[in-house]
Amino acid sequence: MAQKPSIPKGTRDFGQAEMARRNYIFDTIRSVFRTFGYQQIETPALENLSTLLGKYGDEGDKLLFRVLNSGDAFSGIDYGQYRLEGDRYNSKALSLKVSEKGLRYDLTVPFARYVVQHQNEISFPFKRFQIQPVWRADRPQKGRYREFYQCDVDVIGSRSQVNELELVQMVDRVFSLLDIRVGIHINNRKVLTGFAEIAGAPDQVIDITVAIDKLDKVGLEKVEEEMRDKGISEGGIAVIRQILSLDGSTAEKMAQMRSLFQGGSASGIVSATGLKGLDELEELSSLIKAAGLSQEVGLDLSLARGLNYYTGAIFEVKALDFPIGSICGGGRYDNLTGIFGLPDLSGVGISFGADRIYDVLTGLDKFPADLGSTTRLLFAVMGADELRYVLPVARALREQGIAVEVYPEAVKLKKQFDYAARKSIPFISINGTDEIAAGTVNLKDLTTGEQKALPKDDLDAIVDFLQ
Amino acid sequence: MAQKPSIPKGTRDFGQAEMARRNYIFDTIRSVFRTFGYQQIETPALENLSTLLGKYGDEGDKLLFRVLNSGDAFSGIDYGQYRLEGDRYNSKALSLKVSEKGLRYDLTVPFARYVVQHQNEISFPFKRFQIQPVWRADRPQKGRYREFYQCDVDVIGSRSQVNELELVQMVDRVFSLLDIRVGIHINNRKVLTGFAEIAGAPDQVIDITVAIDKLDKVGLEKVEEEMRDKGISEGGIAVIRQILSLDGSTAEKMAQMRSLFQGGSASGIVSATGLKGLDELEELSSLIKAAGLSQEVGLDLSLARGLNYYTGAIFEVKALDFPIGSICGGGRYDNLTGIFGLPDLSGVGISFGADRIYDVLTGLDKFPADLGSTTRLLFAVMGADELRYVLPVARALREQGIAVEVYPEAVKLKKQFDYAARKSIPFISINGTDEIAAGTVNLKDLTTGEQKALPKDDLDAIVDFLQ
Repeated sequence: MAQKPSIPKGTRDFGQAEMARRNYIFDTIRSVFRTFGYQQIETPALENLSTLLGKYGDEGDKLLFRVLNSGDAFSGIDYGQYRLEGDRYNSKALSLKVSEKGLRYDLTVPFARYVVQHQNEISFPFKRFQIQPVWRADRPQKGRYREFYQCDVDVIGSRSQVNELELVQMVDRVFSLLDIRVGIHINNRKVLTGFAEIAGAPDQVIDITVAIDKLDKVGLEKVEEEMRDKGISEGGIAVIRQILSLDGSTAEKMAQMRSLFQGGSASGIVSATGLKGLDELEELSSLIKAAGLSQEVGLDLSLARGLNYYTGAIFEVKALDFPIGSICGGGRYDNLTGIFGLPDLSGVGISFGADRIYDVLTGLDKFPADLGSTTRLLFAVMGADELRYVLPVARALREQGIAVEVYPEAVKLKKQFDYAARKSIPFISINGTDEIAAGTVNLKDLTTGEQKALPKDDLDAIVDFLQ
Repeated sequence: MAQKPSIPKGTRDFGQAEMARRNYIFDTIRSVFRTFGYQQIETPALENLSTLLGKYGDEGDKLLFRVLNSGDAFSGIDYGQYRLEGDRYNSKALSLKVSEKGLRYDLTVPFARYVVQHQNEISFPFKRFQIQPVWRADRPQKGRYREFYQCDVDVIGSRSQVNELELVQMVDRVFSLLDIRVGIHINNRKVLTGFAEIAGAPDQVIDITVAIDKLDKVGLEKVEEEMRDKGISEGGIAVIRQILSLDGSTAEKMAQMRSLFQGGSASGIVSATGLKGLDELEELSSLIKAAGLSQEVGLDLSLARGLNYYTGAIFEVKALDFPIGSICGGGRYDNLTGIFGLPDLSGVGISFGADRIYDVLTGLDKFPADLGSTTRLLFAVMGADELRYVLPVARALREQGIAVEVYPEAVKLKKQFDYAARKSIPFISINGTDEIAAGTVNLKDLTTGEQKALPKDDLDAIVDFLQ
């Protein structure tokens, strides 16, 4: 019985046209990474579950794809022990018995594992990039896949803001090369921590950040109400009111924040962390100015991604001409490798969202037009002698790096022309007994209709005609 | 508690030096595929188990990595039903209950699935290549991994020997570019079938091929003994003796075979299949002659790989100067897509063994020397002003495609020089107040010791010095 073939939900096949476009994105990104001295690594798709579990929260643990132990995985287990009620069993506990490996969930944890495992072979600061698929047992939906590529670039082992600068420069360069106008948003986790500290609620960074972010949508009154519900004191709310009334240019806002952090807020609390955050932002901003950027960059105090792990700079990039959310983001993390036994290593990294960048390029019609076709010339074939006649010419052209196809069968010319059309091959060569007698190849430009017979050994002239 | 990090047995991390070498191999192969008009596709790592099971034999089914269903995978199962004895359970049956997906075992079955699923979008003959990892739950050992890349190129939908020719040409070109001398061995499954037919044992192709192959090692008497044990008749053994005594040049051997297949053997049996095989071999050989090859190619009647699925040409490639077995192989298969409901589609393909090619290049010391270093110039950094001074120069050089690093911290110069040495960076630039005052950058060639101060805006001169 023939099976009707399909692939698992949330996974994709990439045909040659999509691959050409995806490779265009990855090649562009890779080429930029290389000009900054970042070098590629790859880690296995299969990691030990002990490496992955507990790194992404309870929700993340549930989304890990677990791989069954090979061999007799289900024997030696007392199933009764795992029974909950009726035919319900403790799947979480049982899966640990039968599965020791899982599929990579992101590139960050494998990177941390890699750095610790190979610390003696690595030169720090270690600048690496990694472009590989990851797997998540998420509910599949439009734009969310169970298997997708991540494209991460990180530097670990240096606290200098030059690293943040380089990431911003790489973002700037990648999107300039891809011809996508972007806004690069920058914030610093320490500044957000500073706000919580001077509001007298140092443990409520996330609550306060979320509230600040809502001002435009819900108004001051609702924000204050939410703060009260979260248990922020009236004194704290007064400080938040001061933060929300920050005004003027970025430089002016930074000066006002500095004064608040120095004890000038309603609470009078000084925040050393907030001041450190401002220093970092100012240094980064000064470095960006010195280096020069092509794209828009700006401070965005409402930017609050990755608050559970970022400790310094936070980045997010949005396309200005296509509304699709963040297409790139990242930040600085301290102690990423601590969980694997190597503490005090600070790093900073960003991740490019290949699928969204693909959608932006498609939406803005910015993919180069000639990505689809790779073959330049098709030798149509009339018979066995004509075939053998063109084979050395095809070979010589290929050795010049020109993509050439020889139609494999001497079928009707119409069919061979159709093949050229479907594959967008711009030139065709049809040769019969006349050309063989004359020692020429007949070339036709399928776009302009121009036709030319050239000596079969005059490779330069042939190459020239095919340009 | 810090975990000691490790990766699953049989998997590997690839560091930047290995990645550079692996990319060199893949880029070379890819560039050759492209000049022949083959285009890349990718399929998901996760396939439905229904796609994979039964395609690789019982042994293959055992080697599939199965992925646990997400969510409450272990509930709703009556475990008692699967009990064999004591605490032994039917793991095969249970794994089917809790797992519907598996990891790709090779690239051939996903390719067949792809062709059938996308048959209406594909232009036949369909020329595709695919370079992706596959997973096998094999016992790990030296040179055998549980996760490894395959690199397959196939054309499907044409029976013409021009396709076989192209594969041979691609092999020829790839190994010429990699500077590996190879022998390309060619055989044809139909000729082997022909031998079995005229020996009166049409179902014992494999037995007879294995015996023929052993002649050099064990001698004629042992071969005959083995044939008897396998139930070949005395008449059949007489025919095999005739086959083993084939002698002379390839052309002479082919002529003798033709006569045997035409009824001239001891059995007098005519083999139409054998004759068809000879026709195919002769046509391929004539096409190879017309196209011209750089590497050694020859008929190898003992070549017997993939006898369970190849139906025509069989290929195998060995490095002449490094004993490591086959580094590339393939053949023609009919009806690959039949199991997914699309019969009568003939294809031919080969697979490059990236890991073995890597070992050959390492063993012969044939990797280009400059693969390791990608960064051309390191700007050492003395302080905040000096840093800001070089940033625009670094930016301009990167936009010319030159890989430049700026050391992120103003640490001791010794440490910065060490960094350049460890990363094999050939040029360093150290700039202080003098250079800033003069508007120059100071460049040093770390190999020759040559040093030069150039105007910081004279990009051409700087680029020139860095060549």
